[in-house]
Amino acid sequence: MTQNSTPRSWVASANGHADFPLQNLPLGVFSNNGSAPRAGVAIGEHIFDLQVALEAGLFDGAARSAVEAMRGGQLNAFFELGSEARVALRSRLLELFSEYSTERGSLEAHGAKLLPLAADCQMHLPARISDYTDFYVGIEHAQNVGKLFRPDNPLLPNYKHVPIGYHGRASTVRVSGTDVRRPKGQTLPAGQTEPVFGPCARLDYELELGIWIGQGNDMGDSIAIGDAAQHIAGFCLLNDWSARDIQAWEYQPLGPFLSKSFITSVSPWVVTAEALEPFRTAQPARPAGDPQPLPYLFDKRDQDGGAFDIELEVLLLTEAMREQNLPAHRLTLSNTRYMYWTVAQMVAHHSVNGCQLQAGDLFGSGTLSGPESGQFGSLLEITEGGKKPIELASGEVRKFLEDGDEIILRARCARDGFASIGFGECRGKVLAAR
Amino acid sequence: MTQNSTPRSWVASANGHADFPLQNLPLGVFSNNGSAPRAGVAIGEHIFDLQVALEAGLFDGAARSAVEAMRGGQLNAFFELGSEARVALRSRLLELFSEYSTERGSLEAHGAKLLPLAADCQMHLPARISDYTDFYVGIEHAQNVGKLFRPDNPLLPNYKHVPIGYHGRASTVRVSGTDVRRPKGQTLPAGQTEPVFGPCARLDYELELGIWIGQGNDMGDSIAIGDAAQHIAGFCLLNDWSARDIQAWEYQPLGPFLSKSFITSVSPWVVTAEALEPFRTAQPARPAGDPQPLPYLFDKRDQDGGAFDIELEVLLLTEAMREQNLPAHRLTLSNTRYMYWTVAQMVAHHSVNGCQLQAGDLFGSGTLSGPESGQFGSLLEITEGGKKPIELASGEVRKFLEDGDEIILRARCARDGFASIGFGECRGKVLAAR
Repeated sequence: MTQNSTPRSWVASANGHADFPLQNLPLGVFSNNGSAPRAGVAIGEHIFDLQVALEAGLFDGAARSAVEAMRGGQLNAFFELGSEARVALRSRLLELFSEYSTERGSLEAHGAKLLPLAADCQMHLPARISDYTDFYVGIEHAQNVGKLFRPDNPLLPNYKHVPIGYHGRASTVRVSGTDVRRPKGQTLPAGQTEPVFGPCARLDYELELGIWIGQGNDMGDSIAIGDAAQHIAGFCLLNDWSARDIQAWEYQPLGPFLSKSFITSVSPWVVTAEALEPFRTAQPARPAGDPQPLPYLFDKRDQDGGAFDIELEVLLLTEAMREQNLPAHRLTLSNTRYMYWTVAQMVAHHSVNGCQLQAGDLFGSGTLSGPESGQFGSLLEITEGGKKPIELASGEVRKFLEDGDEIILRARCARDGFASIGFGECRGKVLAAR
Repeated sequence: MTQNSTPRSWVASANGHADFPLQNLPLGVFSNNGSAPRAGVAIGEHIFDLQVALEAGLFDGAARSAVEAMRGGQLNAFFELGSEARVALRSRLLELFSEYSTERGSLEAHGAKLLPLAADCQMHLPARISDYTDFYVGIEHAQNVGKLFRPDNPLLPNYKHVPIGYHGRASTVRVSGTDVRRPKGQTLPAGQTEPVFGPCARLDYELELGIWIGQGNDMGDSIAIGDAAQHIAGFCLLNDWSARDIQAWEYQPLGPFLSKSFITSVSPWVVTAEALEPFRTAQPARPAGDPQPLPYLFDKRDQDGGAFDIELEVLLLTEAMREQNLPAHRLTLSNTRYMYWTVAQMVAHHSVNGCQLQAGDLFGSGTLSGPESGQFGSLLEITEGGKKPIELASGEVRKFLEDGDEIILRARCARDGFASIGFGECRGKVLAAR
């Protein structure tokens, strides 16, 4: 499953593409010219239409079964097939799109029907999401936020034992590009005892890694830590938009609710475990004094290679910046290495009580901040809860997000000797409250 | 929409039936003899097979559209049609099954194909549940539980302003009769600082009213309090099985997670708002000093008639009691009047931030305890967290649930001059951990 950096594609825009070179081949669901949503693969500036390719007889065996499972414009049944189908499809895609492909001519003959420009397509959610779970495994974020409330004791006693998570709202997960309507709700103004109702005044983003679940488990069964990686279909970027003022007032004792459920954005492309293989890394050693994971959360192979080195970036573009043609302002440059728990540990923990996971379930990692300034994955951390506004090149300042502000998440994997790959963007623009 | 107590049915077992007289006519999904799940109506000891009735030409107009929407064995599309379709169907059902029905002969000619005995049928979940939300509107429960942790200040400051709720796990909602596998998980033994892993030792039930959502709302829109009742398709009983030891260790800061997600049981029949109409009541006046609801949660008509008078009962049957042929032990006798917020307030609150509700979403009310001993809706309250075990006629004692214990929820609506109706049972038996 290791990759070689040299292979190039006859799809010219793929070579050196920031996100989608031949080595990535992420899966997604798209439509164009008013068509029904259908599955495709991103390659360079193009999308490879898998439905057209299937009808053209380009697949057989396990790769054909994989593409057939994508019919209907949702990847759930494909996710359910597991890694064998995914690997077979990837292998065939590498063959088709290699610069040495013997099928280039026949592929090119199909033209834009088989390989439309991504710019001409609209992306959709890749799967029907039955359940969405948001974790809290970014320990630097947990510490940064904890410090705002408990300066002497930022991490709760369970943090280093339990991969903390909670159930999120599945119905409002939306694909990148969907506008974000500012939510209204109850808030308790500082120093007062009676809440007021109105538009959120402390709207924030949260930078997260999204995880798409592949094969699930029956209710009452558990997924062992050693098997957990096999139950992950792929990865995306996730923005867990948060209304901090609503959250502060509502969250005791049962956790965040309306402060999060107005929308959650995900990037459209499912980046596979195979594409991320070169960017696997050992889970950072736990600092001296930290407890070891309980046995159901410990697997040597997972500790040795179950983490990922993925650079994560957040950009802000305001209305004024767009008008002045200013470049987007970087808010965050972080990395998935700041996860205290691996994705395998998240899967093992989630199912250890017999909770049924299903293909197409979505996990969020929780906000992935680094320890340093510039690495914080939310405005809550960057501005210390609004106390330290940031200044923008447009002359504006921001404590939290204003109407018209757009947040752009990006991810990049780079390693010497390997082609870099990215995730594509996860964008969302804030609209005024209704 | 008011009912008359006199109408009787030619279906003999319906007259005086504890749950399903002619006045109830709840909807559900069933199968028998290995058939595919399909929609039916409970009447006395029978189920009226709506698919067979449709094919026999028994419906036209809005009633026919209502039944056609149930094809596929899930009620979601029917729920989405709203109250007009539901009322049209009810009206036709009352006509068909009245003792004065002119169609009795032709109905009886179909025999058990049209009206199988419920005892010969298997029930299924009535709808595909996209999202499940559990509220916390039982104020006596909130106070009882709060007292265990904060004796002087049991209710948190937000309780009387916010209909507190949190997202639950949709994938593990199961129909009554499904066994409950004891979950395993992390717990922190009393007085220790390191958690251990093993089967839950403090397994509990929670008595709740379940609410099925009918017509939903688009993301970004809200459902006004005055319209909220129109978005409710019906009601059921819900047991929010809870692992108290897992809950105590995991729930800070994001709320309950694995302590609840192993299973949630619901009764199979959807009792409609029309059937419950005679049992509507005014929302109890808030005690002096309590805040008034914010305007988005206040509607005079809802305050005057948006609450329900439904008696709720919980029974326990242990393995030893079954062996000794002892009757089930009543743990709880409570009522939906102990809800601090109405179901309309729950709907209005849930959608006020633009969160999309969808037909088939399920709400739990939260545990509905009364203020007195005998009215507590969980063992946590009854035994004060295990400190005061209960004694059973079998000679056994219980602090929490043991393997083999079965919990049975029941509900009954009674009012002078009206036929009593019930909800049918919500049962679940505890199996040993795997």
